[in-house]
Amino acid sequence: MTHGPRRYVLSAGLLALALAGAGAAQSARTDVDVTALSNELSVRRALNGVRRTESDTIREQIRICEVPAPPFGEAPRARLYANAMREVGLANVRIDAAGNVLGERRGRAQRPHLVLSAHLDTVFPADTTVKVRREGAVLRGPGIGDDCRGLAVILAVARAMRDTGVQTEGSITFVGTVGEEGLGDLRGVKALFHETLKGKVDRFISVDGDGYSLTNVGVGSRRYRVTYRGPGGHSYDDFGRASPVSALGLSVAAISRIEVPATPRTTRNVGRVGGGTSINAIPGDAWMEIDLRSSDEDALSNLDAKVKAAIQEALEVENGRRKRDDPLILMVEPVGNRPAGRTAVATPMVRTAAAVLKTLGLPARFDEGSTDANLPMSIGIPSLTVGGGGSGRDAHSPRESFDTTDSWKGTQMVTLLAIALAR
Amino acid sequence: MTHGPRRYVLSAGLLALALAGAGAAQSARTDVDVTALSNELSVRRALNGVRRTESDTIREQIRICEVPAPPFGEAPRARLYANAMREVGLANVRIDAAGNVLGERRGRAQRPHLVLSAHLDTVFPADTTVKVRREGAVLRGPGIGDDCRGLAVILAVARAMRDTGVQTEGSITFVGTVGEEGLGDLRGVKALFHETLKGKVDRFISVDGDGYSLTNVGVGSRRYRVTYRGPGGHSYDDFGRASPVSALGLSVAAISRIEVPATPRTTRNVGRVGGGTSINAIPGDAWMEIDLRSSDEDALSNLDAKVKAAIQEALEVENGRRKRDDPLILMVEPVGNRPAGRTAVATPMVRTAAAVLKTLGLPARFDEGSTDANLPMSIGIPSLTVGGGGSGRDAHSPRESFDTTDSWKGTQMVTLLAIALAR
Repeated sequence: MTHGPRRYVLSAGLLALALAGAGAAQSARTDVDVTALSNELSVRRALNGVRRTESDTIREQIRICEVPAPPFGEAPRARLYANAMREVGLANVRIDAAGNVLGERRGRAQRPHLVLSAHLDTVFPADTTVKVRREGAVLRGPGIGDDCRGLAVILAVARAMRDTGVQTEGSITFVGTVGEEGLGDLRGVKALFHETLKGKVDRFISVDGDGYSLTNVGVGSRRYRVTYRGPGGHSYDDFGRASPVSALGLSVAAISRIEVPATPRTTRNVGRVGGGTSINAIPGDAWMEIDLRSSDEDALSNLDAKVKAAIQEALEVENGRRKRDDPLILMVEPVGNRPAGRTAVATPMVRTAAAVLKTLGLPARFDEGSTDANLPMSIGIPSLTVGGGGSGRDAHSPRESFDTTDSWKGTQMVTLLAIALAR
Repeated sequence: MTHGPRRYVLSAGLLALALAGAGAAQSARTDVDVTALSNELSVRRALNGVRRTESDTIREQIRICEVPAPPFGEAPRARLYANAMREVGLANVRIDAAGNVLGERRGRAQRPHLVLSAHLDTVFPADTTVKVRREGAVLRGPGIGDDCRGLAVILAVARAMRDTGVQTEGSITFVGTVGEEGLGDLRGVKALFHETLKGKVDRFISVDGDGYSLTNVGVGSRRYRVTYRGPGGHSYDDFGRASPVSALGLSVAAISRIEVPATPRTTRNVGRVGGGTSINAIPGDAWMEIDLRSSDEDALSNLDAKVKAAIQEALEVENGRRKRDDPLILMVEPVGNRPAGRTAVATPMVRTAAAVLKTLGLPARFDEGSTDANLPMSIGIPSLTVGGGGSGRDAHSPRESFDTTDSWKGTQMVTLLAIALAR
């Protein structure tokens, strides 16, 4: 997962809005009286059960994490995870064409249909040591929070629901997705919504990483690799030829001048540049990698268009002022496309989630990020990404750690949320 | 050697100027009647001798070339070359502190003192295969023309002068220099003129590469490695921090807009750029390598000042518009400094050289380049770089070749020029 820094605690007014109706008569059929729900016997048993068996959940978190799941290499962990789904009693366990693992828990009806998901993949290359070390309450290992935590938590939810006979109106499909991180470009969740479960999902929860925040804003991104190419030549003999590095410079300079709105937060970054072979040669090529982000799809499209115009204009300027020989050519290769989206605070799903947190005595902290939930948000399916409890550090670093202190609260939160959303 | 494309054949008027007095009564004591000189018995013998023994010269060219002389690793070839100097009868053969090889041929007096030089170093790394192949008249091997040819030719001159008893008024020091190429930055010839032979040289000829052209314009250069460095960070979370890549882009764009004169030819090149570690990280650093050149020292200094101002201004602009955190820092590291210089066509030395070509039936073709002669030119010592005859291809490439057809003409040219300039 990639969180933004835009965490915000719900203000009193917003909280009132989010909670309106949550404990009162239901104005929308998707609103649930969470307090009452949490007092039902089977639900209370499930919540007590996940607290009592949190040490099993943590062991499962470690076991999953010690099977590598590098980008585009999730299959070994997927096989382990499918077996784990069978062990907790899920039905119709399968791996889809994209590599996502799915397992079902039927309710009284097929709908409403909740997908409860976590992602299999890590950011770490195949040769990373994935052994997990325990130091008191702290687990250390690559991916231990992001997202072995989510994978273990949703298994715990399935186990608790089976063991306590919780009844739900709708059904839940538990999913381990591939390709959430980086160049994975959400390919698992894209396949899930566009193919495997197309048209069949009403709500989506991704449990991703640590903590208790609710990610209701999906930061979208567009990524490009841009290359200018030309004949190159000798710095002195061939002076006057178009230079790919000059075009790159013009375009980076122009991109750096593009104004972006602070709200909705929108950013641009030229993350890597390169080009040329020798100090005394006109470069034959120059390239850059660009990352554009926004919490708003229109703002992102607008920035995207300006950046592309700047890239094209730099080509024309450099070609226009060359004194000799062939013009430069330009290649713009998309290397990432994550749609932006949001699930408004005033929707039943967010109201329910806020009520779950309140019922469990946790603060309602909202966040924005770039997660699997971006995709369903962008096509109008109510979606949230939630933390799995505990507290993590150094995600996306080999030093990653996860502090299990009170992490059962996260398992409880996801359990109650899943039951509420499947009602 | 690095030649420019600015070759020009001397026009009739310029040629007349260059030749004025060459065949007539001497108006300057450094002018020599080359035609008369070439008819002196010992000189005629020497010229015939180098023609007759050209095959020995070519064998020597191959033998030298099969001892590697990578940048900063010329010592093995230097030792071979010192022995070769002893074999052709030079006196006081030695290797100076910089690694240059020197050997002397005293005339009747110490002055005028001519240095006849070629460079030991190649552009090829230490592990390059240096075996030379012969295919008919063509030799193939890295450095075979640039500058094994020059090294062999000046040895042939020494041998011919010894064998034919040519008398000269002044003395000649034969030199194999280190560090002519690339990052060698003329360190051999700098040491020669600033230390080893400081104040003792009246004229300088470098025999560098193939052909018959006279390089009387020394293209100067300044080279820099420029680095912007900052805190880096996450492309979305830390947006608003100063970006080293943005500063680099601004500075490349500004440098690409600097107007440079066509005459004296002046050029700028950003040859390599790099920076950043990940598409979604604000780069921690960004760097470029810049090559500035001119045939005129003032034009070069002027360009140099503008480029430095652009680099500094880009720093200030990017730091000025940052919204948060630490400013960027800037490092500008000089990695090359070759002074520009020229030996005017109307000087006795150039007139003599033009007369030598005319006497031997060769066209007087002038050139500019960046060679060992830059250094003495820049401190006012009459200097030329001349070709060693034959015709070369693909210098600075492992495919380099040298066609020996009529290459004896080059050996003759250098022989006659050396005798004329030591008179």
